[in-house]
Amino acid sequence: MYRVVKMPVVIVEMWEGRFEEQKEKLIKGITRAFEEIGVKPEWLNIIIHDIPRSNWGLNGQQASKIKP
Amino acid sequence: MYRVVKMPVVIVEMWEGRFEEQKEKLIKGITRAFEEIGVKPEWLNIIIHDIPRSNWGLNGQQASKIKP
Amino acid sequence: MYRVVKMPVVIVEMWEGRFEEQKEKLIKGITRAFEEIGVKPEWLNIIIHDIPRSNWGLNGQQASKIKP
Amino acid sequence: MYRVVKMPVVIVEMWEGRFEEQKEKLIKGITRAFEEIGVKPEWLNIIIHDIPRSNWGLNGQQASKIKP
Amino acid sequence: MYRVVKMPVVIVEMWEGRFEEQKEKLIKGITRAFEEIGVKPEWLNIIIHDIPRSNWGLNGQQASKIKP
Amino acid sequence: MYRVVKMPVVIVEMWEGRFEEQKEKLIKGITRAFEEIGVKPEWLNIIIHDIPRSNWGLNGQQASKIKP
Repeated sequence: MYRVVKMPVVIVEMWEGRFEEQKEKLIKGITRAFEEIGVKPEWLNIIIHDIPRSNWGLNGQQASKIKP
Repeated sequence: MYRVVKMPVVIVEMWEGRFEEQKEKLIKGITRAFEEIGVKPEWLNIIIHDIPRSNWGLNGQQASKIKP
Repeated sequence: MYRVVKMPVVIVEMWEGRFEEQKEKLIKGITRAFEEIGVKPEWLNIIIHDIPRSNWGLNGQQASKIKP
Repeated sequence: MYRVVKMPVVIVEMWEGRFEEQKEKLIKGITRAFEEIGVKPEWLNIIIHDIPRSNWGLNGQQASKIKP
Repeated sequence: MYRVVKMPVVIVEMWEGRFEEQKEKLIKGITRAFEEIGVKPEWLNIIIHDIPRSNWGLNGQQASKIKP
Repeated sequence: MYRVVKMPVVIVEMWEGRFEEQKEKLIKGITRAFEEIGVKPEWLNIIIHDIPRSNWGLNGQQASKIKP
């Protein structure tokens, strides 16, 4: 019998400007989502990439230029 | 006032071999985690990369060779 | 004076099922986009990840289950 | 009949120091490349990672140290 | 004093077709490279993405079409 | 006979705060690991993403909050 070793990695690309408590909440929530499918919190790495809006293209333009 | 547009992208790297229902559950769980910080489900893209264990290095060797 | 060396890397995540000619067209088009900002074709690596729809979460569910 | 939903994600890794207008041009160009294979601009997310040259290895050394 | 915890993740994008022993050798070599800067093998996850040549754009075309 | 063209790309996600000489050493070490499987240094791009600890989730919390 083989030991079940699983080390998922999650990379999140999102706009910069989230508050620390939002990041904390997100990390807890994603960890919970993996626990529900049998992945232990200590096996999981979550990496957040903060992206400036001028580096995010949406609808053919920089997100920093999108107006309401 | 600017419209809040946010399109996070989540990339999950994990060992292949998850069942369809585990993937479905994971997608729902991650979506819920983002909803809790104010991101609508329709803004979120989640991408799962299934990785064969022989392509995953852990502790200096291929995960396919890790024994109990 | 320093030689201008630039080696951008482009990673495309998209649903599997594109035809070969669509991939070819896409590679040509992205290469052209970089040429317009001064990047030579031989400096550019473009990598396409084909993602099965069951591995893509959209609107809180697997894209393979999205109906019209 | 199923609705065609496609949400490609493009991640660009390149040296930091591009001008805003170069980024804008690049986003427009990549968007055009996808339009040519049938992907609508509003389906496409483009994410640019600005990488400092000291964080880019090329030819076995940091790109910040490459001389003419 | 804080405990030094470091969990680097390495993602390798390369053409499919490497032999198992090449992958094993690569994983060992990358692990050694991290050990030299103080990262223990058990902290390191290495993920290899096998890319078909038709999904790799180089010099403005699919790598599967590059001739000598 | 086809020319062997191989352009692997390596992306490293790690905590910010490495010294320049550690990055340099790491780039040299990874390059050596690829040379051992037949990849020339000039074919290899290595990209380091410096991640703030508050953007790295480990064990269900931000790495910036992990205590000894």
